[in-house]
Amino acid sequence: MPEFFNVVAPDQAFQLLKKHLPVNIGQETVDTVDSLGRVTANDITSPEDLPAFARSTMDGFSVRARDTFGASEGMPAYIEVIGEVLMGQATSLTLATGQAAVAYTGGMLAGDADAVVMIERTQRVDDKTIEVLRPVAPGENVVQIGEDVRQGDQVLPQGHVIRPQDIGGMLALGLQSVQMARRPRVAIVSTGDELVTPDKKPGPGQIRDINTFTIAGLVTNCGGIPVPIAMVEDDFEAQKTAAVEAMDKGDIVVFSAGSSVSNRDMTASVFESLDGSKIFAHGISIRPGKPTIIGLAKDKPLIGLPGNPVSAMVVFDLTVRPAIYHMSGCVNSPTLPTSKATLTRDIPSQAGKEDYVQMRLSEKNGILQAEPVFGKSNLIYTLVHADGVVRIPLEKGGLYAGEEVSVRIY
Amino acid sequence: MPEFFNVVAPDQAFQLLKKHLPVNIGQETVDTVDSLGRVTANDITSPEDLPAFARSTMDGFSVRARDTFGASEGMPAYIEVIGEVLMGQATSLTLATGQAAVAYTGGMLAGDADAVVMIERTQRVDDKTIEVLRPVAPGENVVQIGEDVRQGDQVLPQGHVIRPQDIGGMLALGLQSVQMARRPRVAIVSTGDELVTPDKKPGPGQIRDINTFTIAGLVTNCGGIPVPIAMVEDDFEAQKTAAVEAMDKGDIVVFSAGSSVSNRDMTASVFESLDGSKIFAHGISIRPGKPTIIGLAKDKPLIGLPGNPVSAMVVFDLTVRPAIYHMSGCVNSPTLPTSKATLTRDIPSQAGKEDYVQMRLSEKNGILQAEPVFGKSNLIYTLVHADGVVRIPLEKGGLYAGEEVSVRIY
Repeated sequence: MPEFFNVVAPDQAFQLLKKHLPVNIGQETVDTVDSLGRVTANDITSPEDLPAFARSTMDGFSVRARDTFGASEGMPAYIEVIGEVLMGQATSLTLATGQAAVAYTGGMLAGDADAVVMIERTQRVDDKTIEVLRPVAPGENVVQIGEDVRQGDQVLPQGHVIRPQDIGGMLALGLQSVQMARRPRVAIVSTGDELVTPDKKPGPGQIRDINTFTIAGLVTNCGGIPVPIAMVEDDFEAQKTAAVEAMDKGDIVVFSAGSSVSNRDMTASVFESLDGSKIFAHGISIRPGKPTIIGLAKDKPLIGLPGNPVSAMVVFDLTVRPAIYHMSGCVNSPTLPTSKATLTRDIPSQAGKEDYVQMRLSEKNGILQAEPVFGKSNLIYTLVHADGVVRIPLEKGGLYAGEEVSVRIY
Repeated sequence: MPEFFNVVAPDQAFQLLKKHLPVNIGQETVDTVDSLGRVTANDITSPEDLPAFARSTMDGFSVRARDTFGASEGMPAYIEVIGEVLMGQATSLTLATGQAAVAYTGGMLAGDADAVVMIERTQRVDDKTIEVLRPVAPGENVVQIGEDVRQGDQVLPQGHVIRPQDIGGMLALGLQSVQMARRPRVAIVSTGDELVTPDKKPGPGQIRDINTFTIAGLVTNCGGIPVPIAMVEDDFEAQKTAAVEAMDKGDIVVFSAGSSVSNRDMTASVFESLDGSKIFAHGISIRPGKPTIIGLAKDKPLIGLPGNPVSAMVVFDLTVRPAIYHMSGCVNSPTLPTSKATLTRDIPSQAGKEDYVQMRLSEKNGILQAEPVFGKSNLIYTLVHADGVVRIPLEKGGLYAGEEVSVRIY
């Protein structure tokens, strides 16, 4: 009877691989406006002070703060208004003692001004004069030069995933393009004599290849670039040819199906036949997803995913996803969405195996309920009907109806 | 003193708009392989049964279940093996009483077989004969025709956001292309005399326009299409021209800055000048983000965002984000990632205002800590330094150090 010879615990699945992987696979110059979701290849430092001039944060009057000291409603400070600093323009106005200039939110202060009095804290006396009704401290209502960022400050660390505000932050400093880690290319090979491409009508005994496309979608969602290589029959030479092409075109090689231990399962021997390859694991103690192969050749992960779609998705998350993040140079893996929900029924689990149970969510009396989707792991609609997945750790014998669980949302 | 005349509660901000909005803005045909993240325009039903033939879920032998009834290790059933059903091929084998055929995982059964015996539950006697050591029930280890999906079943509802497994589910049924809701186009106009485009070196009193690009990134992350229209000075006619173009090119019109109530703030009057426009709110009782305008013209939302980047992002989430989801026809808004974390310090909040506090996360002794980023809302790096945001509801006077908070992760 064939056996899995090298079954690893789920938390080991990626760890085995990780120590052999390059932390990143090179970098490229990317226009800042196109950098959403990309990962910084280096620390980014500021080429300049932001803002480059002291800006008012209020509509009002720029003043010398000391001229307002002691002002009150009963004893206002009388200040001469010598002009207006227009938005977006340099000013030649400079204040002498007892003088002010009109200031706008975001605009410059007059020369020698060190604070802004809000318009609400003043009264017009005449064209040239205002009463200031409360004192302002030096710096009040002002953003100082370099208060947002100082020249030379690190503004983004290496390994950071770019968000909309980071694009704004970089553009504010005039950084038009940035060095980003190259997106890992994930070469996908789908195997099986029974497969036809999705545009074909399957004959008797045939089914359409879907794993190529499901895996491609998962890769895209992780920030990788899916590179579908081929759909190949259960023939060693054909699979070897596809594997060599996958090694050539991808940074990560993913085979779908053929990862178990029957004599029709060739992924392991195909991986072993690659130059300099090493297999770290054949089998993970999870359900579904046990038939999995984890290896490496020339710094490139070799992942043999089970052919069952549910298993493939569970194993993808444990192996390919962290490999993509790692090889992108991500310092912190992106946070995936989760929801707390109340389990509607008991779920048995075998101790010594980590279970991944597909869940459908619904709201009942304002409470989010998680209903297990007990479909077979070879049915794609088990996944389509699921809103997310719950992990039952190795040591647990099951979960009980009414328990609160954390559902990882798809 | 100018005042906000029509301040609404934060939960009303989108509700006011929602009842006037089209639920979707049309549909288009999309290749299934390119449909990741798109929203289904209609219910999708299955054109066929999946699988189209009964499939074995194990390696073993397809049998007539009744021939195994009563079998045990001590008293095995002797079964004649009449051949093998190859993967991906039709078979002419049909079983008579006491016969079996070799079956593979995912392969067809022989004619008249109704169950599969796992290979592990058999022993070879000779070339032609096996012993079956345990009985199987009819249907055991078999996926029945239509067990995954039946012809005519609804496979995806209208308003569903496509995930990797949904692509697999559709392709499994031969659905090569599908009708998807058109992605809402969000026209963005950035206003202010002080702005220069990010490729320019700002002169005295000038800053680079960043809101156009930050908002564009947010739109992209919501599944909308950002359409930058123009960066315009604080001139009514120029802004009106930009607004007309934005109405023409966008399904949603977003103005950045000019949304407050000083006489330099023109967004409200520009929106009011548009044909058939209506303003529902000028001001939201949140901090930051009060200076916000919410209106409508010809079924298109008009949103005036505050110019401060932090405020703009908070208000975007309350107004533009739900508008994009709604106009895409999303039935359930996507779940955004959150993390529970322990607050490191007290945060005061004014009752009657909803506060949005930027947070930086770090782990300390294995516990996730949320440290408020108390930067000014006009500093973009307040957002860049934040990992997420915490909402303090209207009625709360603040949050206390040591409290567990839910941080919405960027």
